[in-house]
Amino acid sequence: MKAEIITIGDELLIGQVVDTNSAWMGQQLNLAGIEVKQITSISDKSADIIAALDGAVKRADIILITGGLGPTKDDLTKQTLCTYFNTQLVFNEEVYKDVEALFKSHGKEVTPINRKQAEVPANCKPIRNKNGTAPGMCFDVNGKLFFSMPGVPYEMKAMMEQDVLPMIKQRFKLPVIFHKTILTQGIGESFLSEIISEWEDGLAWQNMKLAYLPSPGKVRLRITAFGMDRSELIKKVEKQIDLVKPLINDYIYGYENFGEYQPGIEEIVGEMLRKKKATLATAESCTGGYISHLITNVPGSSDYYVGSVISYSNDVKVQELSVDPAVIEQNGVVSREVVEQMAVGARKKLKVDYAIAASGIAGPTGGTNEKPVGTVWIAVATPQLVTAQKFLFGNNRKRNIQKTADAALNMLRKLME
Amino acid sequence: MKAEIITIGDELLIGQVVDTNSAWMGQQLNLAGIEVKQITSISDKSADIIAALDGAVKRADIILITGGLGPTKDDLTKQTLCTYFNTQLVFNEEVYKDVEALFKSHGKEVTPINRKQAEVPANCKPIRNKNGTAPGMCFDVNGKLFFSMPGVPYEMKAMMEQDVLPMIKQRFKLPVIFHKTILTQGIGESFLSEIISEWEDGLAWQNMKLAYLPSPGKVRLRITAFGMDRSELIKKVEKQIDLVKPLINDYIYGYENFGEYQPGIEEIVGEMLRKKKATLATAESCTGGYISHLITNVPGSSDYYVGSVISYSNDVKVQELSVDPAVIEQNGVVSREVVEQMAVGARKKLKVDYAIAASGIAGPTGGTNEKPVGTVWIAVATPQLVTAQKFLFGNNRKRNIQKTADAALNMLRKLME
Repeated sequence: MKAEIITIGDELLIGQVVDTNSAWMGQQLNLAGIEVKQITSISDKSADIIAALDGAVKRADIILITGGLGPTKDDLTKQTLCTYFNTQLVFNEEVYKDVEALFKSHGKEVTPINRKQAEVPANCKPIRNKNGTAPGMCFDVNGKLFFSMPGVPYEMKAMMEQDVLPMIKQRFKLPVIFHKTILTQGIGESFLSEIISEWEDGLAWQNMKLAYLPSPGKVRLRITAFGMDRSELIKKVEKQIDLVKPLINDYIYGYENFGEYQPGIEEIVGEMLRKKKATLATAESCTGGYISHLITNVPGSSDYYVGSVISYSNDVKVQELSVDPAVIEQNGVVSREVVEQMAVGARKKLKVDYAIAASGIAGPTGGTNEKPVGTVWIAVATPQLVTAQKFLFGNNRKRNIQKTADAALNMLRKLME
Repeated sequence: MKAEIITIGDELLIGQVVDTNSAWMGQQLNLAGIEVKQITSISDKSADIIAALDGAVKRADIILITGGLGPTKDDLTKQTLCTYFNTQLVFNEEVYKDVEALFKSHGKEVTPINRKQAEVPANCKPIRNKNGTAPGMCFDVNGKLFFSMPGVPYEMKAMMEQDVLPMIKQRFKLPVIFHKTILTQGIGESFLSEIISEWEDGLAWQNMKLAYLPSPGKVRLRITAFGMDRSELIKKVEKQIDLVKPLINDYIYGYENFGEYQPGIEEIVGEMLRKKKATLATAESCTGGYISHLITNVPGSSDYYVGSVISYSNDVKVQELSVDPAVIEQNGVVSREVVEQMAVGARKKLKVDYAIAASGIAGPTGGTNEKPVGTVWIAVATPQLVTAQKFLFGNNRKRNIQKTADAALNMLRKLME
């Protein structure tokens, strides 16, 4: 079963927006056993949309379209689909009720322009949109399925999960595609390929495919197998991994099962705190609230997280976290002594079991020879102890903030284990 | 002048990698006055590459291809280009010297598989790659330019800047495309479009194009003009902006010149504070540190930002921000009274000129009939006053947090103006 994705919008072609929808849809389709043949991005022009549809329908059985469904004049997908399928727009009462409900939930009345959102091509089955005014549409024509969805990522994703994928699975008998990726580090693509050349040729005999995905310092090796029985495919792939492992064992640092949900460190830590019935607070300097933000992104985090003192200035460190000004004077604000006092101060002040503290030089300025940009001290205070560790990250401010937060949460995880 | 982009690699189709190359290339081409007609992503299969080239050459004068140039067996672009142009690979001494130099700089000898990187189609002009072993290639055939570049982003970008764009500009006389984007906040796409409907119709008469780019809480309005004289186009667009400004002035928070750096609301607010020599603090409940994170993402924010009290629990609100427990009891924690006390408390406690406070129900649980998920109160305290506003966002936790932060920074911006 083959699919194609068509994303519509001038913003994609002029590079004002990166098309992240296609990758997400590609992954979902692939996990469902559907091969994506082509992804095409085109402008909001009727002729271009029709040409793209004409091309896609020759190659694929399922065509997914996103974008161009807004209520404004620059959006033309719905009218173009009418032309393509030789039909016209009709007002749909059910869709209108959804639009009305959405407006009501925001305390507003439906405007005439939004009333038009309830008009859909006569030959489509509308797909409800719980997150926006533009309905999705499904067309079942000449044995092929066409879906049109909004380009707003969270609207499209909800529709894919709740309606589009179930509709595809019901309509077609799908095979299984299984990927497993070997993560290697410390060897270049070409050297790797010479070592595993014979094994790679053997893969092809087994109807499996290998891809090299190089990135700075790392090469990911993706093995792909096709079939009808998932557990058999997994066995086949694992057998091949057992064969290649002895050849490159020194370079392997992990594996990735494509498409499996991987919980973030903030979720792992949250779950540990919940089980321990323990509470957490943070005291942040260079991360400026980012650790707290990660923690509170997790629904239900108020069960274990009480809050934070973001002490961006030294005054706040002294007044709110009881850091000794003499200790700052003596060791500098980026030091073991200061982060340890911050962590202990936050733990006492906010009355929690665990506290994380971070102080560092995020950059781009503020570095010295002794403490260059990227120098970060992180401390964790527990009911039993306080411990601190020094890190040296890079010279990119945003990445330094992210790396500090990851390292801090990871320190807490290790201490709680 | 029209261009098309073809990106090659199974990893793009299965969604293991997001295609960021296309957006970057699209932006560069657009800034050079070249219209990108289509972006096509296809698999590493010869037949698919040839079909994509056949399609692109019918629509465009310039065709840019990335990917499939690695030394490993899964990469087929070079051989396929030979088939397409009916030629064969020849060993290129100049390219080999580059490959050799790159290996030497890593203290390694060229392996046989990397020697093959120096073979290029006989009819191409090779493009040097200073960052990797795969050369780029330029083909000038039947009045059209074809470029093949590696898929590794930094290798491609260096080639585009140093060779590909200069070669295109030398070969073709290019027009000018000018975009300017109006950044609006606090009004939905459909309401906006009704207000500016007449103005929008006038734009079309002036041969300009308008696009709506909605994202949570914001709508960007992009005006595009085409011509031969850049300064004339800028004048034309600025005149239209002067016309629309009085209609939507309350919602405009900035402008973006496409291709130029675009400041976020946190940078705009930061610049205002710096000019006023004023200081800022935040008191955050539902946003959990996200407002603080946005503010401190800006280099140099320590000049005006002192810190925050993240009061996720009520205890912290009472103890650290001096919120009256009786006021919480009476009005609930998501109320005008509580956020106003939070803002005033933070302003006093952290000794700043301005303080922002937010309290709301981010979701997914915690809503009631009276205060559903998405209900947020935001307050700003200034040296003169404290003011609060109620918002009703949606039911997505992460988006509610983002929308609250944007709305809070925007409230501060308006009050400072």
